[in-house]
Amino acid sequence: MIQTDILIIGAGPTGLFAVFEAGLLQLKCHIIDALPQPGGQLAELYPKKPIFDIPGYPSVLAGDLVTNLMEQIKQFQPGFTLGETAETIQKLEDGTFIVTTNEGTKHQAKAIAIAGGLGTFEPRKPILKDIEFYEKEDRGVDYFVKDPEKYRGKNIVIAGGGDSALDWSIFLSNVANSVTLVHRRNEFRGALDSVEKVQELKNAGKIKLVTPAEVVGFNGSERITAVDIEVNGARMKVECDYFIPLFGLTPKLGPIANWGLEIEKNAIKVNNALDYQTNIDGIYAIGDVNIYPGKLKLILCGFHEATLMCQSVYNRINPGKRYVLKYTTVSGVDGFDGTRKEAEKAVVKSID
Amino acid sequence: MIQTDILIIGAGPTGLFAVFEAGLLQLKCHIIDALPQPGGQLAELYPKKPIFDIPGYPSVLAGDLVTNLMEQIKQFQPGFTLGETAETIQKLEDGTFIVTTNEGTKHQAKAIAIAGGLGTFEPRKPILKDIEFYEKEDRGVDYFVKDPEKYRGKNIVIAGGGDSALDWSIFLSNVANSVTLVHRRNEFRGALDSVEKVQELKNAGKIKLVTPAEVVGFNGSERITAVDIEVNGARMKVECDYFIPLFGLTPKLGPIANWGLEIEKNAIKVNNALDYQTNIDGIYAIGDVNIYPGKLKLILCGFHEATLMCQSVYNRINPGKRYVLKYTTVSGVDGFDGTRKEAEKAVVKSID
Ligand SMILES: Cc1cc2nc3c(=O)[nH]c(=O)nc-3n(C[C@H](O)[C@H](O)[C@H](O)COP(=O)(O)OP(=O)(O)OC[C@H]3O[C@@H](n4cnc5c(N)ncnc54)[C@H](O)[C@@H]3O)c2cc1C
Ligand SMILES: Cc1cc2nc3c(=O)[nH]c(=O)nc-3n(C[C@H](O)[C@H](O)[C@H](O)COP(=O)(O)OP(=O)(O)OC[C@H]3O[C@@H](n4cnc5c(N)ncnc54)[C@H](O)[C@@H]3O)c2cc1C
Repeated sequence: MIQTDILIIGAGPTGLFAVFEAGLLQLKCHIIDALPQPGGQLAELYPKKPIFDIPGYPSVLAGDLVTNLMEQIKQFQPGFTLGETAETIQKLEDGTFIVTTNEGTKHQAKAIAIAGGLGTFEPRKPILKDIEFYEKEDRGVDYFVKDPEKYRGKNIVIAGGGDSALDWSIFLSNVANSVTLVHRRNEFRGALDSVEKVQELKNAGKIKLVTPAEVVGFNGSERITAVDIEVNGARMKVECDYFIPLFGLTPKLGPIANWGLEIEKNAIKVNNALDYQTNIDGIYAIGDVNIYPGKLKLILCGFHEATLMCQSVYNRINPGKRYVLKYTTVSGVDGFDGTRKEAEKAVVKSID
Repeated sequence: MIQTDILIIGAGPTGLFAVFEAGLLQLKCHIIDALPQPGGQLAELYPKKPIFDIPGYPSVLAGDLVTNLMEQIKQFQPGFTLGETAETIQKLEDGTFIVTTNEGTKHQAKAIAIAGGLGTFEPRKPILKDIEFYEKEDRGVDYFVKDPEKYRGKNIVIAGGGDSALDWSIFLSNVANSVTLVHRRNEFRGALDSVEKVQELKNAGKIKLVTPAEVVGFNGSERITAVDIEVNGARMKVECDYFIPLFGLTPKLGPIANWGLEIEKNAIKVNNALDYQTNIDGIYAIGDVNIYPGKLKLILCGFHEATLMCQSVYNRINPGKRYVLKYTTVSGVDGFDGTRKEAEKAVVKSID
C-alpha cells in the first residue's frame, strides 16, 4: 500500500504545482494519472504549442511548462502511479482515505486532492468488429503509446491524420520493424515540420503510407496478425503485431463522478470562499475539475487553488499549530531529498 | 484628465498582470504608483533575489519577473503615472470614478483595482534638525533616487549600510561629480559583489567612505550646501548638493485607508467568493492589499485575483453580454498596439 500525506489525482499543471506548495509545508504527495506521462492536457493535447497567459511568461511552450514544473517539484520527490485510473475511494474511521486504481494499486492518504481536469481522456475508438476482443490483454490494439519500447522490432499499423498519428509514426519509425500509416484522406492536419518529416520518412521508405484508406477488419485468432485495409474501394491485408488508432481523445469525468461528490456541469462543486474543499470533508478539488461562481478554467487559477488547498490540508493534519507564512526568497526551499535552494545571503563585511 | 477602463493603483506584480488579463478582454488600463519604477516590492526591496514559488519557474530573480511581466503586458500599452500617490477618490453619478494624486493628476475610470500591496513605501527618515525644511522643494534631501540624471555633475552624500546605499553609491559614482558614503559602522550588509565593488571604487578614489560616522546637521540657508558629519567623536563638514539617506522603507496603507473601504488588519476586505470586490461597488482590491479568510500574501495568488477581477469588470462594463473564455493558445493575443501573438497554425497538407 502506497502511503502519503496528500494523494493527488491528476498530474496536470495543477496537480504538479500542488506538490511544490505541499512540500513547502513539509507534506508529502503521491500522484495518480491515467496517462503514461505527467502534464495533463498540456502534455497530451498541445505540448508544442505556446501559452501566452502564464504570469511572467510572455510565451511558453506547454511541454516546457510541464518540464519546468517537474523541475520545480523534484526536490519534494513526489511518487507517481502513471497509466492507472483512480477508480474507487474509501474513507476509514481514522479519517484517512484509500484510493484504488483500475489495476488494483492501493494508496492511503490523509487528504485527497482531485486535480482531474476534464477527467480521464477516453480515446475515440473506430467502430470495428471484434475490436473489444483485440484491445484487451495485449492482443494487439492499443489506443495510447505508453512505452515505445514495447514496439521495438514489431510491425505497426497506425491510423489517424493528426499530430498524434504523425508524431508517433515518426518516433516509432526508429523503433519498430515497420510502420504503416493509414488515413482516410491524403491530407494530414498537423504541425508543418511533422507533416514534412513524415513525407521525408516515406520517401526514404521508413514509413509506409496508405491513403485514402481505412482499417476495416482484423485477422488472427489469439491476437492480431494482420489488418484489412480498404483503399479506394479495393482491399489489402497488412501484416502487423499492433494496430494503434489515434483518432483523438475525449475527456470524461470518469469514475470520480461516483464518489458521492456534488457535481455541476460535469465538474465538482467546491468551497471557493475558503479552501476548495468538496462536500466530503478531506477531499478537495482543484484546477479545471472544480466549479464555483466565477470559475475560469485556466492554468494560473489552478496554481492558486492548489496553494490554498495545501494550507487547508496543513491545518487539518496539524490542528492548532499556528502556521506562519514563509517567503521562499527569505527562507529558502528545503527538499525532501536533502537539497536546499536559497537566495545568496547578504554578507556583513567591512570596507577599509 | 487621463481616461481608462480600469485604473490600477499599484504597479507591483499583481497590478502589472491585471493589465494583461484586462487586455485579453479588450479593457484598457492605467497604473498609478508612488514609486518611480514598476515592480512593487520586487523592484524596490529585492530585485536581485531569487523567488522559488512562481509556478513554472524553479527560480527567477524578482527583477527578471518584473521585466517579464512588463514584456508580457507591452502589447496592451498600459499608461503609467509613476512617482505619484493616489490620494483621493470620487464616485460620479454615472458610476465612474475620479482618482487624484498628491501632485494633482486626475484619472477617470470605469472601475478601480487597488493593487497597493502593503501600501506606499515610506522612507525611514533620520531624526535631524531642519530635515523637514530641506526635504521639500528640491532643497537637497532626497529619500528616493527617482531620476539619476538629476545628480549628474553634483556632489552627493549618501547615508546607509545596506543594499540601496551600496548600489546607489556605485551607480552614482559614474554620474555625480563626487559621492561620499556615510555609515554608522565599518561593516556593510549587502550582496557580496556590491560590497566588493564599493571597496574597489573606494580604492580607485571614486567613492569617499566615511565610517563609522553619522550625518548630524545641515548647512545652507536656501538649500543644502554641506552636511556636518560626526566621525569617531570628531566633526567634519562635507560640501554637497544632495544628501540621500537610504535607511530602508516601511509600508503604510496610506491615503487609501480613508476611502471608506472596510479595513481589517491593515488590509482591504473583499468578496473572495466571487470577484475580489470591496464594499464599494466598482472598487476591487487584489494582491497583498486585500484580506479574506485563508488569504496568503503570495505573488501567485495576486495573479489569480487579478484575473477574476478583470472578468467581473468585463461583466460590469458589458452587462448582459455573454463572455466565452478563450484560450490564448487557441485564439492568440491581439494587442492594442496592433501586434498579434499566436501559435503556429496546424497545416493541412497532403503527403504523396
Ligand atoms: C488546446 C488547448 C489550449 C489551451 N490553452 C490554454 C491557455 O492558453 N491558457 C490556459 O490557462 N489554459 C489553456 N488551456 C486549458 C488548460 O490546459 C487547462 O486549464 C489545464 O490543463 C488544467 O490543468 P489541470 O491540472 O487542472 O487538469 P488537466 O491538465 O486536465 O490534467 C488532469 C489530469 O487528470 C487525469 N485524471 C482525470 N481523472 C483521473 C482519474 N480518475 N484517475 C487518474 N487520472 C485522472 C487526466 O488523465 C489528466 O492528466 C488549453 C487547453 C487546450 C485543450
Ligand atoms: C524580501 C521579500 C521576499 C519575498 N519573497 C516572496 C516569495 O518568495 N514568494 C512570493 O510569492 N512572495 C514573496 N514576497 C511577497 C511579494 O513580494 C508580495 O506578495 C508581492 O509583491 C505583492 O504584489 P502586489 O502587486 O500585490 O503588491 P506590491 O508588490 O506591494 O506593490 C504595491 C505597489 O502599490 C504602490 N502603492 C500603494 N499604495 C499606493 C497609492 N496610494 N498610490 C500609488 N501607489 C501605491 C506601492 O508603491 C507598490 O509599488 C516577498 C516579499 C519580500 C519583502
